[in-house]
Amino acid sequence: MKTTRTQNLLAAALACLLLGALAGPAAQAQAKDSLPSWNDGPAKQSIVAFVEKVTKPGSPDFVPVPERIAVFDNDGTLWAEQPMYFQFFFALDRVKALAPQHPEWKTKEPFASLLKGDVKGALAGGDHALLELVMATHTGMTTVEFEQIVKDWLATAKHPKTKRPYTEMVYQPMLELLAYLRANGFKTFIVSGGGIEFMRVFYEKVYGIPPEQVIGSSGKMKFELRDGKPVLVKLPEIQFVDDKAGKPVGIQMHIGRRPILAFGNSDGDLQMLQWTTAGAGARFGLLVHHTDAEREWAYDRNSSIGRLDKALDEAQAKGWTVVDMKRDWKRVFPFEKP
Amino acid sequence: MKTTRTQNLLAAALACLLLGALAGPAAQAQAKDSLPSWNDGPAKQSIVAFVEKVTKPGSPDFVPVPERIAVFDNDGTLWAEQPMYFQFFFALDRVKALAPQHPEWKTKEPFASLLKGDVKGALAGGDHALLELVMATHTGMTTVEFEQIVKDWLATAKHPKTKRPYTEMVYQPMLELLAYLRANGFKTFIVSGGGIEFMRVFYEKVYGIPPEQVIGSSGKMKFELRDGKPVLVKLPEIQFVDDKAGKPVGIQMHIGRRPILAFGNSDGDLQMLQWTTAGAGARFGLLVHHTDAEREWAYDRNSSIGRLDKALDEAQAKGWTVVDMKRDWKRVFPFEKP
Repeated sequence: MKTTRTQNLLAAALACLLLGALAGPAAQAQAKDSLPSWNDGPAKQSIVAFVEKVTKPGSPDFVPVPERIAVFDNDGTLWAEQPMYFQFFFALDRVKALAPQHPEWKTKEPFASLLKGDVKGALAGGDHALLELVMATHTGMTTVEFEQIVKDWLATAKHPKTKRPYTEMVYQPMLELLAYLRANGFKTFIVSGGGIEFMRVFYEKVYGIPPEQVIGSSGKMKFELRDGKPVLVKLPEIQFVDDKAGKPVGIQMHIGRRPILAFGNSDGDLQMLQWTTAGAGARFGLLVHHTDAEREWAYDRNSSIGRLDKALDEAQAKGWTVVDMKRDWKRVFPFEKP
Repeated sequence: MKTTRTQNLLAAALACLLLGALAGPAAQAQAKDSLPSWNDGPAKQSIVAFVEKVTKPGSPDFVPVPERIAVFDNDGTLWAEQPMYFQFFFALDRVKALAPQHPEWKTKEPFASLLKGDVKGALAGGDHALLELVMATHTGMTTVEFEQIVKDWLATAKHPKTKRPYTEMVYQPMLELLAYLRANGFKTFIVSGGGIEFMRVFYEKVYGIPPEQVIGSSGKMKFELRDGKPVLVKLPEIQFVDDKAGKPVGIQMHIGRRPILAFGNSDGDLQMLQWTTAGAGARFGLLVHHTDAEREWAYDRNSSIGRLDKALDEAQAKGWTVVDMKRDWKRVFPFEKP
């Protein structure tokens, strides 16, 4: 008994040694090596300087572990969002798959245009058309059924430009940043305008972020007993829109504590950065600026997807770090040769 | 440099050894000692047996750490709820404090009755009266202001029977259970009908549960810039009611994963237990049965507060563990002599 206990303790110590090498005090010294896909410019330097000052015991800017909350937008911040939000491609594919069960869609917008391949025509109906599309493709099934539908789609769907699975369209430097922050005691959250149930299906695997740390837009749900078996049914009613001024609200609802670091890429993230950086003590706001038409896309003030205009001005006025993708990232996607 | 690194690793290993002694494989052997306020009866035995089987590597019931989600009701499960939910006493005290600013309350129900000390009369208006009361006392201020109001109240308010601060009216055996589960890799969540912003003010200190692991009823909020400074204003509109069939919905919204353990005490927790225990693999449902009129209160099927009727029948039918407070708990409150 005693031997086993000692062995257990030794095994625990060994495991901890390995963990300690990654996450312990030594991590600070290794900081710059934790971000190998970042060029050693001002953006990387500002990130490392912030993490070091808030994690160094005795530093005037020290932040205790439970308060090390970091929030990340998803589309355009952690993975690509061009030529259209990836969840929109999911909805399009679902419309095609469901069309045989909906003969009325042949003459009903936005479905009629979509089924003819006319995306622009379908979206001419604006927010109302988009909402119709979301409701038709994201509701009416149980949460368990929806999860399976998303999994099946992710397993086969390919990005129209790169022909890669969507889950490979994530930014390598951001994967490194998420891991670096977690190794320094941060809890990393997604705060996205995307659908919360859609995102949760793959974020744990792709980003190492568990479902309880994903915040997004949501529809109402209803608890039911079906043949004595409990299910949650996704209803065609909006519960919450997690975008723009909704992002600080989503953060308060889910986290209940103001983050100390916020990372976005568009005007949809402006209020999240305002809310985060207005707190007392050390705070850090960052934006990804899409400047690399060759390796990714270049867009900002005039883009309908991921428009970055007001937030870019405010970043300059407030001293938020702006990551210039072309200048600051050695590598964009994991599938590129390093 | 090398010496420092080695020292750091050794320090990390030492810290981990100590942690390992608490949280590592050795914890299983110490399980029964982690629950000193529980009598060694069937309830404690069922808890320990469940934790051991889901945490033992190689066990057919083994559950990986990220899926070890445990949810707890609050009122009547983690702290007392008699003679009235404690948040209701907060609302009453706020009505008294705010009355000078609301001369119209002298003739307006439910305020008029409350101000005369007639709680029953005030509540004769049912849900509508209760909603009026919540809106008048929980909205119209910023989240930061509300947090301070709750803190100030908790610092001075006393329970009408014990004359103790409300935060001392927590159940010692449940504090031990929360710590025991966390030491075994569980993430512990509160899932309560209480107001989410109210509860978060003190749960981290009292239960060791951070605000992002508190799920409750909520009102809508609005993001605003006031003189350029961002605030979140609490609006007089219900966002979500986290009770009964709302609890599984709240769990899905916030956690996005089905818990493996759920602990409640009333019919308001029935659907949460149904949802939790219907999942695949090892699942565990528990109810606290209030049977101790001497040390706490005795109530169940006919109580208006914390009614336990349908859930008690279903616990018997489904084999959920029912904790008999009088029989199973050596000590109820931390302030009792052990």
